Amino acid sequence: MAPKDVYIAVIGAGGVGKCFLSQLEALTKRYSANPSSPKLSLVFVSRSKKVLYSPKYTALSYDNLATTLADSTQELLALPKIIDYLAAAPAKVVLVDNTSSQDVADQYPAFLSKGISIITPNKKAFSGSYKLWQDIFAGAASSGAKVYHESSVGAGLPVISTLKELVDTGDEVTKIEGVFSGTMSFLFNSFAPTEGTGGKWSAEVKKAKELGYTEPDPRDDLNGLDVARKLTILARLSGLEVESPTSFPVQSLIPKELESVASGDEFLERLPEFDSQMEETKIAAEKEGKVVRFVGSIDVGTKQVKVGLEKFDRSHPIAALKGSDNIISFYTKRYGANPLIIQGAGAGGDVTAMGVTGDLLKVLDRLS
Amino acid sequence: MAPKDVYIAVIGAGGVGKCFLSQLEALTKRYSANPSSPKLSLVFVSRSKKVLYSPKYTALSYDNLATTLADSTQELLALPKIIDYLAAAPAKVVLVDNTSSQDVADQYPAFLSKGISIITPNKKAFSGSYKLWQDIFAGAASSGAKVYHESSVGAGLPVISTLKELVDTGDEVTKIEGVFSGTMSFLFNSFAPTEGTGGKWSAEVKKAKELGYTEPDPRDDLNGLDVARKLTILARLSGLEVESPTSFPVQSLIPKELESVASGDEFLERLPEFDSQMEETKIAAEKEGKVVRFVGSIDVGTKQVKVGLEKFDRSHPIAALKGSDNIISFYTKRYGANPLIIQGAGAGGDVTAMGVTGDLLKVLDRLS
Repeated sequence: MAPKDVYIAVIGAGGVGKCFLSQLEALTKRYSANPSSPKLSLVFVSRSKKVLYSPKYTALSYDNLATTLADSTQELLALPKIIDYLAAAPAKVVLVDNTSSQDVADQYPAFLSKGISIITPNKKAFSGSYKLWQDIFAGAASSGAKVYHESSVGAGLPVISTLKELVDTGDEVTKIEGVFSGTMSFLFNSFAPTEGTGGKWSAEVKKAKELGYTEPDPRDDLNGLDVARKLTILARLSGLEVESPTSFPVQSLIPKELESVASGDEFLERLPEFDSQMEETKIAAEKEGKVVRFVGSIDVGTKQVKVGLEKFDRSHPIAALKGSDNIISFYTKRYGANPLIIQGAGAGGDVTAMGVTGDLLKVLDRLS
Repeated sequence: MAPKDVYIAVIGAGGVGKCFLSQLEALTKRYSANPSSPKLSLVFVSRSKKVLYSPKYTALSYDNLATTLADSTQELLALPKIIDYLAAAPAKVVLVDNTSSQDVADQYPAFLSKGISIITPNKKAFSGSYKLWQDIFAGAASSGAKVYHESSVGAGLPVISTLKELVDTGDEVTKIEGVFSGTMSFLFNSFAPTEGTGGKWSAEVKKAKELGYTEPDPRDDLNGLDVARKLTILARLSGLEVESPTSFPVQSLIPKELESVASGDEFLERLPEFDSQMEETKIAAEKEGKVVRFVGSIDVGTKQVKVGLEKFDRSHPIAALKGSDNIISFYTKRYGANPLIIQGAGAGGDVTAMGVTGDLLKVLDRLS
């Protein structure tokens, strides 16, 4: 039976955090109408420089929550104080980390060893040092706390749960390959479409930025690190002891000369000077009847992980991707020649928050 | 914490059952090496006309299990006796129904209300009458027993878990569409390929039968009922009160004149007489630059469920399917214009058994 009372603490209340709070409010209402469901109480919520919490663990109200938080004059709590506060709660606690903060991630083992479960889309904890990865799962095992991070790869797509189930039921994953970045997907689906010619590289990057598909500085997408982090997580779940997201080859799409220019705006201004490089790559692929895509792959047998440009036949599912969709193909012993494929939006507030809410349901089912 | 001891009872030990028993043996061994894992004991296994069980609930040996079962002289147990036997066990019990028997399915409410959890690929229970569907979930709710049936749609593909998570996290599923039969997938990918011409319809059916891709009588695939059963399950999980798999339009690919011929062999012999019908359908699609596929779809808003032939652009993911793969597209409010897609082998002993083993892991995590 699920526990009767569960306290929820949320760090990060903008973007994904805002969407999650809205989903949590709906879930809390639905549960309150069903006497056999646990009673969910939001007791802590914070964003940069603001915190709102209930010292006696009474539930915060969702009415005007964003405003109440913005106007809050409660004193900020350092992470160790947050841990103390949550560890002293008179019922089970789930911490929802909706930030991308390394500082918060570094404290996961401390939260978990105190029995506080964690759900999060934050990639940092699971793609940082291998030691942090080990400490996180050791912390959880020592206390029985749960830790889920479905949205750290492919947002709400069932990527991590599927990989775990393949491994846990005894299948042998041989290779994982896919497009793991919505930004890169959008850029290459426009730059090198399967039909028609596509625009200039620098123009597509500019357009993606204008549409909000890139980070404020597009170099934070083009350096490949975001994809490398996701590959690190999947490789580790496949059993490879990957030390860090910089311990395997990652192709950066930032021209050397623009790596150190001061701002994202200056980068965008000068990017057209380097369009010929990407154009050559595109034409080389076209000569083989193919298109170029930015993919990540893990060969489990040879332990090779890599991120960068690859060429694909126009009819290949990776080439035929649309919009900013992600695609992830799992090649396994049981599935044979045709992989198990998962495809769809891999970014966006609502679908990322959905992965987090889905993890909350899993934790609630498993806490007792 | 998961319970310490769990008893497993398996009905059906050929095909999927055999693959499942092999996965269960491996899981049991892995768990026995980890003191914090539950101890799994196989206490009952049966196949048609044979049963092997341990009256005092000691674990049966996996060594030569198939032979021991085949040679068993234990008296057969009627279903009510099996329920009594399992309900009297001194720990939690999971029943694994690897049959496609309606008789077993009809007893699910009785098993569940006695606290016996059920995992199964058997479609019959969830696509029979709507009353049986309600009784099953009422039985589970009354006792806290769990019921999972991932492999009843798309074998080991994460179809049901994904749909449940979309619904449970508050997304609004608007439409589900896909190829739900490995047999139909193989037939149409060969008959109307996206490149090249493909063979005659009757020849493709014959080939599929020879390769073991059809039921012994191919009409059991071509009547569309298997797909209709899967659609019934998904529609109900989406909130539609579908009365039965015959309560919505299902297109049969069996020519009227051959519906009542005595045998599958006679059917195959006479099928070439009707090739022109399917050829016309194929040519009509080609004139629009499309290919024909056998699909099922659920429009949640208009409550329309249907199964039959549809035309698709050659670049559509449903047209581009390979081999005997299934593809399932979920259109939802959160995912917008591009659906969440799951694709891969949707039939076969090992991948079907994997879905069952995955369900067992979910039950073990949730029993306490």
